[in-house]
Amino acid sequence: MTLLFCSAHDDAGAWKAELKPRLPDLEVRVWPDVGDPADITYALVWKPPAGMLAGLPNLKVVLSLGAGVEPLLLDPTLPDVPLVRMVSPGLTDDMAGWVVMQVLRWQRKLDAFAEQQRAGVWKQLVHRPAAEVRVGILGLGVLGEAAARALKQLAFDVAGWSRTAKPLDGVETVHGEDGLVALAARSDLLVCLLPLTDATRGILDRKLFATLPPGAVVINAARGGHLVEADLLAALDSGHLAGASLDVFAEEPLPPGHPFWSHPKIHVTPHVAGITHPSQTADHVAESIRRHRAGRPLTNVVDRTRGY
Amino acid sequence: MTLLFCSAHDDAGAWKAELKPRLPDLEVRVWPDVGDPADITYALVWKPPAGMLAGLPNLKVVLSLGAGVEPLLLDPTLPDVPLVRMVSPGLTDDMAGWVVMQVLRWQRKLDAFAEQQRAGVWKQLVHRPAAEVRVGILGLGVLGEAAARALKQLAFDVAGWSRTAKPLDGVETVHGEDGLVALAARSDLLVCLLPLTDATRGILDRKLFATLPPGAVVINAARGGHLVEADLLAALDSGHLAGASLDVFAEEPLPPGHPFWSHPKIHVTPHVAGITHPSQTADHVAESIRRHRAGRPLTNVVDRTRGY
Repeated sequence: MTLLFCSAHDDAGAWKAELKPRLPDLEVRVWPDVGDPADITYALVWKPPAGMLAGLPNLKVVLSLGAGVEPLLLDPTLPDVPLVRMVSPGLTDDMAGWVVMQVLRWQRKLDAFAEQQRAGVWKQLVHRPAAEVRVGILGLGVLGEAAARALKQLAFDVAGWSRTAKPLDGVETVHGEDGLVALAARSDLLVCLLPLTDATRGILDRKLFATLPPGAVVINAARGGHLVEADLLAALDSGHLAGASLDVFAEEPLPPGHPFWSHPKIHVTPHVAGITHPSQTADHVAESIRRHRAGRPLTNVVDRTRGY
Repeated sequence: MTLLFCSAHDDAGAWKAELKPRLPDLEVRVWPDVGDPADITYALVWKPPAGMLAGLPNLKVVLSLGAGVEPLLLDPTLPDVPLVRMVSPGLTDDMAGWVVMQVLRWQRKLDAFAEQQRAGVWKQLVHRPAAEVRVGILGLGVLGEAAARALKQLAFDVAGWSRTAKPLDGVETVHGEDGLVALAARSDLLVCLLPLTDATRGILDRKLFATLPPGAVVINAARGGHLVEADLLAALDSGHLAGASLDVFAEEPLPPGHPFWSHPKIHVTPHVAGITHPSQTADHVAESIRRHRAGRPLTNVVDRTRGY
């Protein structure tokens, strides 16, 4: 049985090195060196060329290197085999860490202190204690839950929203349209960790921003498609929102000259919030392959109707 | 019974407002308006003038507004009454949050990305996953334990050191001289949250830095007296250490022209890692006063021999 690796963003050599000890008898080929397409049983991919997977007649499972699978679902020729999304401790810890870093950065005025240091200024700035800072999390999957738990551990006043009801031990959760408005109204910092689907595209828009309390901050670690960029700029420039931390964008790389680059209230990171580290993730991939080989049910299979 | 408030760093009005509903019959006076010194039973203080407390003949308890009490212990006229150090959720959460923010800042290359943003550069930089980043915490009191737990929640590989053995559920701990060397040798980031005593003064020195792995980062949220500043500069400039985040300094405010201000590998914050927020702390103060009034034993009383 053979696995085909295809990603311009991930290190094929590192993946081969991590998979070898876990699945010694698995042959790994790296696209475009496919060999006989009929050999390929598994495909481990991130943004493969459209139509590429359809050319593998014996493909049994597609393993996504990313947590969000909407780029794969956009390919109308995607074969009708199980599509497994990425769920791994390394990716989850990464995402929770990036979110916590951004929340603390705003609460504790990190950039203001960095600016003061550059100017040689010693001035204590007042911050609100974490217990009085309300963080709202959109999306309560594996990533949203991990971010919520880490923020709770630091005493932030955390609540979460999901499309359908998702109780979370120790965290206030709401759902549905009404729940979204209620969550936004109590969010000093609003964190987006949703999957990108037809139901969530453009969810971070003018209407939602108007519901946030004055001075709120928006943090997007999910997908650029969740955010209506012009609405964010308007809400920042009117003074209603205090800032934003963005890791994902409608167009990536963020184009030169885009207003986000130089906006004084926007922090840009280049899509690094959640990285699929081979060392932290190979267990997940190997387990899916072992399950398939043994005829056991796969976990984390994407429901193509709901889109995640 | 009357409480005297004395601090140039804390908001007397906010403290009166928080204490009133908790202890309606407690009169609060604000230094220098002491009135009759014989009226004063309790003193709530941060860095009071030397000798001031000795002039209060009926003083029964000194309540520190700071977690570290070494400035009070330096006053040879400090009355021989119980000295209660500050332990409060707000201060503890603050300190853990500042430490986690600094750890993430280094792990996730926050400042490199901020620099890239200023230059309009989209470039993903590789970081090590949290599970492969070793954080060592010096000091396992309330603050060290809280920082350890928050870092563990984010999957960092945390270990801790204290003077005497202090087992901590789920965290590897060591103690004593040998333990200190062992901890340093496995710390990619070394966090100081120790009390300042004769035994810990200058603990962050050339010898300890040499024990850290190459590329390590030093984070000091405790006291400036823990750090030998010249040794840090030497270890940074030799390239052995990669950086430092410092909230406390031998002289505060950090003097103009001090090399830390402009050092490219040092992040300076102006002693804001742990703030005593009245809203988050008044319960602790009120509880100490209620205990004393009821003749119950006080908690968090400083052992003057060990110094904390």
